[in-house]
Amino acid sequence: MAIAPERIAVDWGTSALRAWAISGSGEVLAEARSDKGMGSLEKSGFEPALLDLVEGWLSGPVDVVACGMVGARQGWVEAPYTPVPCDPREVRRVRAPARDPRLRVSVLGGVKQDSPADVMRGEETQIAGVLTADPGFDGVVCLPGTHTKWAQISAGEIVSFRTFMTGELFALLAHSSVLRHSIGEGWDPDAFEAAVADAMSRPEALASRFFSIRATALLEGENKPAARARLSGLLIGAELAAARPYWLGQRILIVGSEASSAPYAQALGGQGVDCARRDGDAMTRLGLANALVKLGDSV
Amino acid sequence: MAIAPERIAVDWGTSALRAWAISGSGEVLAEARSDKGMGSLEKSGFEPALLDLVEGWLSGPVDVVACGMVGARQGWVEAPYTPVPCDPREVRRVRAPARDPRLRVSVLGGVKQDSPADVMRGEETQIAGVLTADPGFDGVVCLPGTHTKWAQISAGEIVSFRTFMTGELFALLAHSSVLRHSIGEGWDPDAFEAAVADAMSRPEALASRFFSIRATALLEGENKPAARARLSGLLIGAELAAARPYWLGQRILIVGSEASSAPYAQALGGQGVDCARRDGDAMTRLGLANALVKLGDSV
Repeated sequence: MAIAPERIAVDWGTSALRAWAISGSGEVLAEARSDKGMGSLEKSGFEPALLDLVEGWLSGPVDVVACGMVGARQGWVEAPYTPVPCDPREVRRVRAPARDPRLRVSVLGGVKQDSPADVMRGEETQIAGVLTADPGFDGVVCLPGTHTKWAQISAGEIVSFRTFMTGELFALLAHSSVLRHSIGEGWDPDAFEAAVADAMSRPEALASRFFSIRATALLEGENKPAARARLSGLLIGAELAAARPYWLGQRILIVGSEASSAPYAQALGGQGVDCARRDGDAMTRLGLANALVKLGDSV
Repeated sequence: MAIAPERIAVDWGTSALRAWAISGSGEVLAEARSDKGMGSLEKSGFEPALLDLVEGWLSGPVDVVACGMVGARQGWVEAPYTPVPCDPREVRRVRAPARDPRLRVSVLGGVKQDSPADVMRGEETQIAGVLTADPGFDGVVCLPGTHTKWAQISAGEIVSFRTFMTGELFALLAHSSVLRHSIGEGWDPDAFEAAVADAMSRPEALASRFFSIRATALLEGENKPAARARLSGLLIGAELAAARPYWLGQRILIVGSEASSAPYAQALGGQGVDCARRDGDAMTRLGLANALVKLGDSV
């Protein structure tokens, strides 16, 4: 059966593209995804990549709102950063050039902080989703991922934030370093917990502890699930040591997938911090839906 | 002119193979190298790779001594680790199987430490070179590289050591992470020094400082030499914070190439530590020459 969405929401990151067809009443009618992330596209490739994915949904002109790296300098169109403090539901947006008259595409800009220098693209939409679901939210949102963000939210605004390359470091070390020989699938919660504690008390020793994972495997035999949990625990423990002002005595909401959120919840739980959790994809959709409604208001 | 060495010294690492033809009096007659490192070879590939390189030097049977990853489990033959404390001039060696009767190959084993778990393969030969040049050396040897080692030497023995994955982290972050867009050739000594101080005082913030390099480039414009120096300074600063017992109030000798040693000398100099320096290749050759002489003694 043909669907005829009134709006399309798009989450366009570095490595993936996802789109949702949305009815006039806000219902998700269909979902589609492809691996045509911003990282693999030339400027002229964005419109065809989107059409490939959503052409079957189009009968007439449709409003499209996209968030993420699609708005970077190398993206479809550069959408400028809004400086903190700002309401993530009100970030700057720009029109992306499209030849097909059925596509009316707006790209949401990211959020920047001058000191310390920091940027986000995509996470502001997830935080907008959090504030759409709970307009009174006051506290800290932790968004685990390739570049984990901690954001202080107060009075409906992002007040400050900080990024850690924890996820990217984990991927590089587990798959591309000498540790790849010693790390495998599986998980050992005790090894994780010990590594978090170890890194929180001696975060400077990280580069030495990494090599110790390899040396332990050589001298005592392989335990690939424990090695994987230990690497994750070392990285997250060091992050928690540095992010302490963001979580100590704060109300914490973790926004992400189950896989990326669970280790953070375990590590924070070990520090006596109870965290609420929300699904990252759901928050992205809610943030985009909010942006689409605003678009309707302003037309 | 044909040369007829009495001995051949071989430094066989993960990514490269180097051989020196040595006369009866210890003189280097010739040098050869190839990219047939241990990482690219099957067990059966080691003898052919060596013959490719040195066949022109062979007239009759020759003693060959090899150090490095060639003695790992995946190498030509596994040469067991000698536990610390030990004299690096007396590590265990094993005979490698060779079909060609002209090759009498001994492989030197590495050194291990049970607690904290740590291993070296190759660096023990460089330290043997240091002790061959200066038998009374008492202090700390720092060997910068992919896996930087700090080794406490006393009474002719390696007493303890510690490995940091600093060089491998630098390579992964500079070439394979999001920072690759912001890092280029060149060097900024002031940016390096500031980053060392920053990481020494807040080593736990490393994963956040890394992302700041990218964010600074996006918000303030690119400065690729400064970004490269900053990444190096952050990593070495954190290493110095963790390795403090190895350098504070110690006599330090840095053994390595000019490129890998200079940043360590600058960072330690900033802490008021004067370092002596020796060339890494020269120490490897000296350590191998010492092992070849001992081989002669024991025949």
